[in-house]
Amino acid sequence: MTETVNSQPAPAPAKPVRGHRAGMLPGRQDWSSWPHYQAAEAGFRGYWYPVCFSSQVGDKPRAVTLLGERLFVIRDNGKIYGMKDRCPHRGVPLSHGDKQFPGTISCVYHGWTFDLETGDLKAAITDGPLSPICGKVTQPTYDVEERLGLVWVYIGDGEEPHPIDGQLPEELVGNPAVVGQRIQARAGNWRFACENGYDEGHAKYLHRTALWRLFKPMPVWNTTKIVKRGRWIYRVQREQYWEADFPGLGPWSGTAWYKARPPKGVRNIGNTTSHRKVNPTIAAQEFPGFASVSMPGVLRIAYPTFIHYEFYVPVDAGNHLYVGMLADFKKGVRTLPFYAKYLGAVRWLFHGQFSGQDKWMVEVTDAPPEKLYRPDDSLLQWRKLAEDTTEERLERLRAQGIEPADATAG
Amino acid sequence: MTETVNSQPAPAPAKPVRGHRAGMLPGRQDWSSWPHYQAAEAGFRGYWYPVCFSSQVGDKPRAVTLLGERLFVIRDNGKIYGMKDRCPHRGVPLSHGDKQFPGTISCVYHGWTFDLETGDLKAAITDGPLSPICGKVTQPTYDVEERLGLVWVYIGDGEEPHPIDGQLPEELVGNPAVVGQRIQARAGNWRFACENGYDEGHAKYLHRTALWRLFKPMPVWNTTKIVKRGRWIYRVQREQYWEADFPGLGPWSGTAWYKARPPKGVRNIGNTTSHRKVNPTIAAQEFPGFASVSMPGVLRIAYPTFIHYEFYVPVDAGNHLYVGMLADFKKGVRTLPFYAKYLGAVRWLFHGQFSGQDKWMVEVTDAPPEKLYRPDDSLLQWRKLAEDTTEERLERLRAQGIEPADATAG
Amino acid sequence: MTETVNSQPAPAPAKPVRGHRAGMLPGRQDWSSWPHYQAAEAGFRGYWYPVCFSSQVGDKPRAVTLLGERLFVIRDNGKIYGMKDRCPHRGVPLSHGDKQFPGTISCVYHGWTFDLETGDLKAAITDGPLSPICGKVTQPTYDVEERLGLVWVYIGDGEEPHPIDGQLPEELVGNPAVVGQRIQARAGNWRFACENGYDEGHAKYLHRTALWRLFKPMPVWNTTKIVKRGRWIYRVQREQYWEADFPGLGPWSGTAWYKARPPKGVRNIGNTTSHRKVNPTIAAQEFPGFASVSMPGVLRIAYPTFIHYEFYVPVDAGNHLYVGMLADFKKGVRTLPFYAKYLGAVRWLFHGQFSGQDKWMVEVTDAPPEKLYRPDDSLLQWRKLAEDTTEERLERLRAQGIEPADATAG
Repeated sequence: MTETVNSQPAPAPAKPVRGHRAGMLPGRQDWSSWPHYQAAEAGFRGYWYPVCFSSQVGDKPRAVTLLGERLFVIRDNGKIYGMKDRCPHRGVPLSHGDKQFPGTISCVYHGWTFDLETGDLKAAITDGPLSPICGKVTQPTYDVEERLGLVWVYIGDGEEPHPIDGQLPEELVGNPAVVGQRIQARAGNWRFACENGYDEGHAKYLHRTALWRLFKPMPVWNTTKIVKRGRWIYRVQREQYWEADFPGLGPWSGTAWYKARPPKGVRNIGNTTSHRKVNPTIAAQEFPGFASVSMPGVLRIAYPTFIHYEFYVPVDAGNHLYVGMLADFKKGVRTLPFYAKYLGAVRWLFHGQFSGQDKWMVEVTDAPPEKLYRPDDSLLQWRKLAEDTTEERLERLRAQGIEPADATAG
Repeated sequence: MTETVNSQPAPAPAKPVRGHRAGMLPGRQDWSSWPHYQAAEAGFRGYWYPVCFSSQVGDKPRAVTLLGERLFVIRDNGKIYGMKDRCPHRGVPLSHGDKQFPGTISCVYHGWTFDLETGDLKAAITDGPLSPICGKVTQPTYDVEERLGLVWVYIGDGEEPHPIDGQLPEELVGNPAVVGQRIQARAGNWRFACENGYDEGHAKYLHRTALWRLFKPMPVWNTTKIVKRGRWIYRVQREQYWEADFPGLGPWSGTAWYKARPPKGVRNIGNTTSHRKVNPTIAAQEFPGFASVSMPGVLRIAYPTFIHYEFYVPVDAGNHLYVGMLADFKKGVRTLPFYAKYLGAVRWLFHGQFSGQDKWMVEVTDAPPEKLYRPDDSLLQWRKLAEDTTEERLERLRAQGIEPADATAG
Repeated sequence: MTETVNSQPAPAPAKPVRGHRAGMLPGRQDWSSWPHYQAAEAGFRGYWYPVCFSSQVGDKPRAVTLLGERLFVIRDNGKIYGMKDRCPHRGVPLSHGDKQFPGTISCVYHGWTFDLETGDLKAAITDGPLSPICGKVTQPTYDVEERLGLVWVYIGDGEEPHPIDGQLPEELVGNPAVVGQRIQARAGNWRFACENGYDEGHAKYLHRTALWRLFKPMPVWNTTKIVKRGRWIYRVQREQYWEADFPGLGPWSGTAWYKARPPKGVRNIGNTTSHRKVNPTIAAQEFPGFASVSMPGVLRIAYPTFIHYEFYVPVDAGNHLYVGMLADFKKGVRTLPFYAKYLGAVRWLFHGQFSGQDKWMVEVTDAPPEKLYRPDDSLLQWRKLAEDTTEERLERLRAQGIEPADATAG
């Protein structure tokens, strides 16, 4: 309840202001050009998603919401299992229960006991060993894998899941890269988070005040090209412009007296074979990274000696998990400096500062309606990738006789 | 906003887990088998309900919500009156007002003054003594009684209320039993609270960790029989089983090394003429009480020397009052030890601990959908009692020419 | 979670109470007699509204919600501009942005830059100086004026706004009256706030406990007459009655032993030519002020030497701004005593105390349904004024070929 008081005399009236009141607001009012993408408010089914760290899963069930579904994960004899988190008896969450017998979960209310592997109801403790309800109920279960220190759950439509290794960034499969990781629950739709991550335009502008960039200048703008290679679409930078003169407005640049001097003129970057082996800090400046994105919403920014990943995991229509990962491919002695760098400035500045500003924008983005501009070609390519990939998946499912949950086509 | 960080290397991938993903979930999707019960989300009309303690009602109006209706109660010249809590002038709650004249309530806004007994508008103070509005408005009133130190309000459909003594537990009518009482506002639907109270199955399992049971073992399971007598349906225990061996899982019992030794083998209890006169603590163990339930949702658990009652009072569809009462039929000198017991371990352990766990389950129960098992015969009998009793009431009302508010039949 | 415990024995049953349960509640169920007024939940379009103090608007955008529309105001080169607060690119609030170039606002996300006067998109910083999007988008703007130390925004349907001076209280136009002001965000619908302000009935009753009136008695009731003059309708007081005897109830007065003695008998006040020049404190007692109200919801209470104004500014359907103003027409030396009085007891008691009780009633008023009484003639006249004025405005707009947003007629 804001309250403000003013005791000063009224000033002389100012000259009135007239404007074009109605405005002119072209643009699309919805995402009907991408019906699958439009329908995927709570995420795309048919993928593995990281939900937590392996170290967070033990003998006690851990509740998880993923793509709007409530499940729990639990470790038994070394393996992790996943199961729907709603006892079919009276709807109480099974995650309030525990293991009365190895390999099972027992509901806290009446002791209904389910096999973790099959979901079969093996006993109703409070109705004795020969309870007629045994064998009449099977609780839905989820496929779960562990990779890279994370727990991954598959959300599908009843089909056999594809092997998770076919979905991970290829360089991480079977490669003992050291990783630093961060998981953060965030408000906002996962699609805004993904579009923000792959967005070519904003980083130079929104993040120019970030501490990471404090002493380093950023270009005003640059041109890019979108290239598809396998599962990924890449954003390749071409010309960089460090200063610009805006007609009718004036000159503008990201430089300041306290920043280092930027390179003069136009710089061509984008030749993937020519980036120099440099200190990663300098590399991040001069090679802002080759960004790429793949389904179901995985951002990868490759630097000369390390790679940064972001997984946007849909919790429900209004929330997502931000899973950030940094992989370094040096081994042995050189691991230690990496940790120092990660736990020091790099990690905090990169993940925290940039991501804090990204997190803010994801919370306040509200589209459609939207009016896209030239650099949004990256967004359009990402949506096309999502739309085409999903259409292919739906065709595969129908060929198997499965009617999927998210069919939007005709 | 949970945030977690992991800096450990990824472990070796675990062997994948496959389960029966879809599950098998039979059961009912709604309560259409009991249409009146299904419609009674905010309670059954045509009953007296306890709303607060007599000592809580004085000269100032006390707002109450009961079966979704907002009213207030107030004491005047020794009697308690009830009235709709919304001034018909501009909708302001009359419970913000006070008594400007004896036997009346005056709204705080413009001084509209209503007779507490009849509801007639006797004056509009701000329009003088001859205000034309007088006599043109009558505020709805409620029937109110005081019994057992509680204030009871009748919610009906315009019929003359039945005498409250016909609705109280018979043994409490006119009997100066000493009572200990507790009223607590709780989240959750009143029907889940009632079903939980009469539920045969859960007490042995959910409450086996309660402090009350800490040194006493509980049976694993037992068989019961439901018997109807008058207004009440009774849950009579037959065989008790203290240990059980679950096929494919292993043995299970409620015993532990720190608990007393349970009786061996099968114990037949349930012959109401043979329970021994024992210390109530032992009685509670060996005679878990004869539970019975009656409309509109009153649980009664009878022990040899005292009886425990629970009234589940619907506030609205999502909230109820838990009113717990303990009655002892000893008189005179023996009253003091009872108080000591009640205000000491018995009360705290019985009402508080058990009820805390019950309260938790009532908050998280989410049915239908539901799949009932053998011990839920008690629930089915309770719902049948509710359905049949309500159908009889509706027929009585229609015979009087009253069309009730909760008619669900045809 | 209220919890109460009672350990006292049950008292003897009290005699039952019977009342007229159903009541009799005549009155209107809706405001269909005034369709424009009924539809104006979020305010009447076609007016200037005060939103904040001039001193609160500087170089940084200030977000404002007015009649349910989100806009921001900003000062540039001495003038204040208003603009829709949603970047057309991706829906991010422009009020998170800043001025990268004089006379413009740049969105924080991608640097879309709009001209403050015209709303034209002059640049998209992150797409360089020749971005094709320039000139293709124009952001809606608002007309803004400054008067009496306040910032006023016009909300309309595309018509040219009438000059603001035609809408201000006439005595304040061009008159350097010294003002004390207070702005407070309040819950509740603006129409309840306005009706409460112009309500003849409640002040004597609701406010009789206010500190301002502590030592001064108030009349029990009075008769009034409603008079229309120009844009304003006046509430003129006739007879005042300081005591009253209510049939069947007893005598009632607003006097108390600690209050000054009221005038005896009936006092006729209301002759606008005969009010005496007196100390304002006494004047406020004996001349409770001549209240008047005008569109779009402005209350004016005139005293011999100062005037109190209240503007009820609709923020949205459930919230409004309370803007209180006190104007004094003395100049020079006499200004100082006024300030002392305003910042002392008068201001606090008048604005704060009364308004606190008014604020409370506005929060809990819940009409329709409503049953009006004799003194509510003031309300009916106000609604008629609002209805007729709005119908005239709609006809004017249609004559200009504009189809308004709030057309409720046929």
